[in-house]
Amino acid sequence: MANEMLIGVDLGGTHMRSALVDVEGQIILRRKTLSENSSGARRATERLIEECRALTESAARLGGRVAAVGLGVAGKIDRENGRVLFSPNLPALDGHPLAFELRDSLEVPVAMENDANAFGIGESWMGAGRGLDNWIGVTLGTGVGGCLVLGGRLWQGDKLGFVGEIGHMIVHPDGPRCACGQNGCLEAHASASALLEGVESAASRGTLAAGPLFDLWRARGLTAEKIFHCASQGDAVAQALFQRMGWALGLAFANLFRVLGIRHAVIGGGVSAGWDQFIIPLEKSMSQYSSMLDMEMCEVRRSALGDDAALLGSARLAMGEARGDRGTD
Amino acid sequence: MANEMLIGVDLGGTHMRSALVDVEGQIILRRKTLSENSSGARRATERLIEECRALTESAARLGGRVAAVGLGVAGKIDRENGRVLFSPNLPALDGHPLAFELRDSLEVPVAMENDANAFGIGESWMGAGRGLDNWIGVTLGTGVGGCLVLGGRLWQGDKLGFVGEIGHMIVHPDGPRCACGQNGCLEAHASASALLEGVESAASRGTLAAGPLFDLWRARGLTAEKIFHCASQGDAVAQALFQRMGWALGLAFANLFRVLGIRHAVIGGGVSAGWDQFIIPLEKSMSQYSSMLDMEMCEVRRSALGDDAALLGSARLAMGEARGDRGTD
Repeated sequence: MANEMLIGVDLGGTHMRSALVDVEGQIILRRKTLSENSSGARRATERLIEECRALTESAARLGGRVAAVGLGVAGKIDRENGRVLFSPNLPALDGHPLAFELRDSLEVPVAMENDANAFGIGESWMGAGRGLDNWIGVTLGTGVGGCLVLGGRLWQGDKLGFVGEIGHMIVHPDGPRCACGQNGCLEAHASASALLEGVESAASRGTLAAGPLFDLWRARGLTAEKIFHCASQGDAVAQALFQRMGWALGLAFANLFRVLGIRHAVIGGGVSAGWDQFIIPLEKSMSQYSSMLDMEMCEVRRSALGDDAALLGSARLAMGEARGDRGTD
Repeated sequence: MANEMLIGVDLGGTHMRSALVDVEGQIILRRKTLSENSSGARRATERLIEECRALTESAARLGGRVAAVGLGVAGKIDRENGRVLFSPNLPALDGHPLAFELRDSLEVPVAMENDANAFGIGESWMGAGRGLDNWIGVTLGTGVGGCLVLGGRLWQGDKLGFVGEIGHMIVHPDGPRCACGQNGCLEAHASASALLEGVESAASRGTLAAGPLFDLWRARGLTAEKIFHCASQGDAVAQALFQRMGWALGLAFANLFRVLGIRHAVIGGGVSAGWDQFIIPLEKSMSQYSSMLDMEMCEVRRSALGDDAALLGSARLAMGEARGDRGTD
């Protein structure tokens, strides 16, 4: 009997990353290509099918057989019906039965989840969530995503198509404007967008002193990574933005830990690379807002899988689908 | 065989309410006495034993047999070991193995829970939570208590002795001071204490106009109920305090609904009598802070059991204990 293998796909706004993964969670082979979202749903779906076919052929050459495919997609997902409901970063896919079409073409089971949920499944399986029954996951990127693992399983709530939307928790009702239209969301304090907005705002207030951060801003060359670099070099404006990020995350965790009666969180996503700039303010804020919590017991962990979390989570999701046990993820 | 009956006890700072309850959730007989907390743990425990003995004798006269006792106690409870860890309203019981002593004296199984959790079990069994898998419970009293029912069961989190502490969620980091030492807790906006503090604060700012509320304040005769009455009569200061209560509850629910992916809440406790003054501001606030939530789907219900919620919840807890199925509550 051929060796059972899984395909995990992390489908983002720009790139489509995919991997062949064994049932032990080891990545055998990776691929990366453009999502081709701008060419419409048909082209994006074809691109996805081509990637999966290529991985299926590689599996065969290695004496394996692809048992199922898992997709992690940024946006609101109807998991039951394999449909993308709403995806700000992949608008061409809105309403598209992506998982259903993929299943038809590849003739293997296909499961689809929100990318932050895929992150949660991945970290639970092979990363920082291993062995933890209950934890909150947060992904810091352009926006802020989130998930909940409760009782060792990804929490699905009332299956409303959203869950773990930590990014739009209000942490300060008079706080900065968020892309969602509200004021004071966690995302407006703790995302790449919040960092960029924060520099813009400092510039328009005239508090951006001459130096590398100012030069980057003037040259329109700012990225979250560069703001982190400036903070590490001692830029006060950049440091204050990471402090604000830590403050907001600490408040959100203190609130949720108390309500849920739990004590672990895992932070991932590209902007978690700024860890060294925000973890101390985060812990300070969590401690400040911690009445009834024993801070000694609380632990905020950094993602152990980095970029591979959603990829591995999608593969784990595929494994559950292949085995007919959706509850295991 | 004798008819199986249960004793439920709601142990508050001043009063100890108890009832004989049948397995269908009907209250057969009620008792009410003083908690006698100020006379120390020994006397309070004796009082509790006396009440349970009286109910046990009543059960026998009715051809019944008490299968177990359930206790709902305000404070942090170590349910596994039947111990009160910390109770602000019943300080004599701090560290006291109350359930253990009761079991020894009565020779029946005894289970103990936090009173807000008992409220949740009660409303799930016989009240506003019937038929709902997932909901948030909030009790508005001197303080604000809370519980979570997830997957049809009382959520216990990591069994840290606290869970559902919605009262100390920060809803506004620059908000009013809370008894816990933090600023801007839900409790500092939405409790009887918050109403009383709010009137004091208006008086000290000189914004308390002549009228019934001013007269009550001057006579030191204020209660939450009287502030509600003044609001109903059109007093602007009193109305603003209930609006603030509704605003804070709406923000807290919007935050938690989004993170948990659920859509129901139940509000109980004495101060929920002010419902007509806070429900419209609550719904307005929940709608304002509702990005990604379909407000049509969300529902905030009023407790169906009133004062009996924790009493019935304790009886249901007893039933689970008698049947060796702690998971059913």
